Amino acid sequence: MRQYKCDSALEQWAEAVGPDYVVTGEAVLRQAETSTFATNRRISAIVRPANREEVQECLRIATRCQTAIYPISSGKNWGYGSRVPCSDNCVLLDLGRMNHIVDFSEELAYVTVEPGVTQSQLYAFLRERHSALWMDATGASPSCSLIGNTMERGFGHTPYGDHFAHTCGLEVVLPDGTVIETGFARFASAQAAPLHRWGVGPFLDGLFSQSNFGVVTRMTIWLMPAPEYFQAYYFRCEGEEGLSAMIDALRPLRLSGTLRSASHIANDYKVLQALRQYPWDQPGCATPLSAEAMKGFRKTLGIGAWNGSGALYGTKGQVREARRLLRRALAGKVTNLTFLDDRLLGLAARFARFYQFFSGWDLKLMLEVLTPVYGLMKGIPTENPMTSTYWRKRDPPPASMDPDRDGCGLVWFSPVAPNKGDDARRLTGIATETMLRYGFEPAISLTILIDRSISCIVSITYDRHVAGEDERAKACYQELLSTLAGYGYHPYRLTVNSMDAASEGGAYTELLQTLKRTLDPGAILAPGRYLPIVPT
Amino acid sequence: MRQYKCDSALEQWAEAVGPDYVVTGEAVLRQAETSTFATNRRISAIVRPANREEVQECLRIATRCQTAIYPISSGKNWGYGSRVPCSDNCVLLDLGRMNHIVDFSEELAYVTVEPGVTQSQLYAFLRERHSALWMDATGASPSCSLIGNTMERGFGHTPYGDHFAHTCGLEVVLPDGTVIETGFARFASAQAAPLHRWGVGPFLDGLFSQSNFGVVTRMTIWLMPAPEYFQAYYFRCEGEEGLSAMIDALRPLRLSGTLRSASHIANDYKVLQALRQYPWDQPGCATPLSAEAMKGFRKTLGIGAWNGSGALYGTKGQVREARRLLRRALAGKVTNLTFLDDRLLGLAARFARFYQFFSGWDLKLMLEVLTPVYGLMKGIPTENPMTSTYWRKRDPPPASMDPDRDGCGLVWFSPVAPNKGDDARRLTGIATETMLRYGFEPAISLTILIDRSISCIVSITYDRHVAGEDERAKACYQELLSTLAGYGYHPYRLTVNSMDAASEGGAYTELLQTLKRTLDPGAILAPGRYLPIVPT
Repeated sequence: MRQYKCDSALEQWAEAVGPDYVVTGEAVLRQAETSTFATNRRISAIVRPANREEVQECLRIATRCQTAIYPISSGKNWGYGSRVPCSDNCVLLDLGRMNHIVDFSEELAYVTVEPGVTQSQLYAFLRERHSALWMDATGASPSCSLIGNTMERGFGHTPYGDHFAHTCGLEVVLPDGTVIETGFARFASAQAAPLHRWGVGPFLDGLFSQSNFGVVTRMTIWLMPAPEYFQAYYFRCEGEEGLSAMIDALRPLRLSGTLRSASHIANDYKVLQALRQYPWDQPGCATPLSAEAMKGFRKTLGIGAWNGSGALYGTKGQVREARRLLRRALAGKVTNLTFLDDRLLGLAARFARFYQFFSGWDLKLMLEVLTPVYGLMKGIPTENPMTSTYWRKRDPPPASMDPDRDGCGLVWFSPVAPNKGDDARRLTGIATETMLRYGFEPAISLTILIDRSISCIVSITYDRHVAGEDERAKACYQELLSTLAGYGYHPYRLTVNSMDAASEGGAYTELLQTLKRTLDPGAILAPGRYLPIVPT
Repeated sequence: MRQYKCDSALEQWAEAVGPDYVVTGEAVLRQAETSTFATNRRISAIVRPANREEVQECLRIATRCQTAIYPISSGKNWGYGSRVPCSDNCVLLDLGRMNHIVDFSEELAYVTVEPGVTQSQLYAFLRERHSALWMDATGASPSCSLIGNTMERGFGHTPYGDHFAHTCGLEVVLPDGTVIETGFARFASAQAAPLHRWGVGPFLDGLFSQSNFGVVTRMTIWLMPAPEYFQAYYFRCEGEEGLSAMIDALRPLRLSGTLRSASHIANDYKVLQALRQYPWDQPGCATPLSAEAMKGFRKTLGIGAWNGSGALYGTKGQVREARRLLRRALAGKVTNLTFLDDRLLGLAARFARFYQFFSGWDLKLMLEVLTPVYGLMKGIPTENPMTSTYWRKRDPPPASMDPDRDGCGLVWFSPVAPNKGDDARRLTGIATETMLRYGFEPAISLTILIDRSISCIVSITYDRHVAGEDERAKACYQELLSTLAGYGYHPYRLTVNSMDAASEGGAYTELLQTLKRTLDPGAILAPGRYLPIVPT
């Protein structure tokens, strides 16, 4: 048992949420302190409120008892720190029990959820109702919280992939226990509350995203009408240098609105990680897998140095025209441009060899990769990308995967670059060289999430059970962070160990600190999250 | 000369910006105090800084001297208060001299501007460079500030019509004179500064929109690549009751992304105001123009009870498919669905009578209205909509229009409703009845600016030189505001006389007040703007 400023803190929380929902068992706390990389934060208890009123009371108790409290929704913030707080000796405020879907409109295409609502829960909800609406899904995990991912500005693969841009009307509990609703929702019975983001007066939603200014307890998510027709596209380039032309060819299509969703471009290492574990069985299998060895896998598996995918949404006519424009833009710049729809996917699964003959793709193998990504582009959550966190493990992924528990090493570094070939080449070149030098396979993806920029994800994947790997991963991340910041490529999201990188140390950080002192004078809420802790 | 807490305030400002740029002439101040409706605020001086450093110094002086200071960009906030502050005895901080276009990228499609940059200035800038990019334009005036309109969340007619949603990287001077840059721009030489809105950590841009928390001195605006092909569409319905089906038919097209820009739907009164002044020459011309008389004009002019317009952007193939879908959706629900492109517009102007024979539109007359709206949908600023502010005047609009100077009465009331036929009918029905009862023509437009909501603009247009009209307009506005708020239709934007309507009087307003006290403890910046003044 650990110390609180207030001896009765645990009793007070137990009174607020019920004694069954205050967890202090050492084994459970140890698990919650375990991420996919090394952290040194201790968690003193887990408190699990059932509703917004209990959240309010929990924050009031934390303020009275001067105890830091760290909210998690599903705690599946893998690659960035899982459930681990940004500072030591926090109480975890686990919002997982607040899992109600509180409003839904088929006609106006939205759903209003609590923080415990997961991707798979919303997906099932829509299926049960035979809804003609699609959600957007992130590749993280079906059991990932929608609010958690959105507030961290996570993204997905449909036209609604920029999650934070497709939300409306937050309900937020402030550190002092006060509740506000943003946008028009602050007016009782405002008709446009779930429909119009800005409301009237200052727009405050952004204050509560990637911050420690409040706990979001409800959010409206806009949903996308299922298109009449859906077609995925895939392409690749054989050499590293082909990336630049590929990006520059896609940009005009994104800017013109022809491509309504993200194109996702993965390098060879990234695809290999999605396909299989590390080839321990190969002769001379010393890590990291060398560029030379990787070239061998490219040939065997029929993948390129860079492998693009994305999807077209619309009527058959709209998709046909987009396909024509995509073909024209990519002509001579990529190879194996392939289109796949539900019908062809069914056929291809049955006639893989025949299909390979015509398309050059080894479908028997590739369908394994394509199908989950294909589903993601339709907003179907999938566990499949999680298998890649087991890349460096010697045993295959278990049926019930848990990267935290299983010692999977994963650190995600996510710099943003202009949507230009030159920038993509420079960024990925530096990342590749750095990763290999530290002994990691440079698994990299580029997502053209919004028109003008690229969200890059560099995955440092390793086995935490191998001595020294945690330290090397940390050093590698730090070097990536500082080197690429030097080139002007800053991350859109940070791990719990690297939050200081959100601070430029100037007037902006000072403003955030001022806001923090105002909204949370006791500094009880998620200290250090996207804002350095000021010593008192 | 008026009083300041600090005798030397004017001298200090004169030192900061140069004596030529501190204006205290009574005639000029009287003009600046004049809006398109009655206000009772006195302005004590106008200070005109040349750059950001001077803005900083001006705010520091205001803080030292405890003098309220009210920033305007171009001061063309017509219908909402022009240059008039929300509280008495402010100094106007006129940012008009800061009119530099400081960055531009054809490739990544953006421009970075200062507050004095106007619509016509950006338009000319793009034309000079033979740019293939389009700006979005609002109908207000070519001399309207881009930053001013965006920070008030004004809107236009292209796919980039939601102005605030298409900006990035603000530079803001806080009330204490500190400067911050938002998003990635806070990191020196961040490559994605003008390209990626959210940056890392809390997203603060919304704090400075419709607020009094800071002065925006620079902003990046995203521009739209000119489409290969552009086609406008027009349609109407004959009776009031047709509106509902029209809205419900358009909604799925907007939600599916087939319509990428706003559909704009104007009632008969609104179209008549755009076409001509009040028909004083008609027998029995007592105001307001009755519904019966309006029906006569509908017949004569060939307009409907509701008149829709919008545009399709893309390749010829994309536009063809969108046109097919629009035709199908509107079939049986509207009449006279007409498509117009550059070629046909040229032909129609030459062969108007011939065209009328086939289409049923009186083009000789309608081209007068259609051409400026047509241009707006291509992002071309126009003075044309301004003529309607002279609707109730006896003399025609002068060559150089200035509604403030000319005693044009104009109050814009702008409630937001769900994008549903029922809501549109209810809202416009109440507005129409109320307006006529107060003696005003109910000129109403509905803009489906974003997928799920309708931005309604009710124009109270009158002659300020007619005794009693100012008072009636005020009373009418107040009744519209309170009645429609009762139905849950709240305005997206407020006049300088009605800022209290942004307050729900609860926790949200209290949070805003807390932020205001923190950021502006002396309450020197734009007191009362979107936030009630708390008596000290």
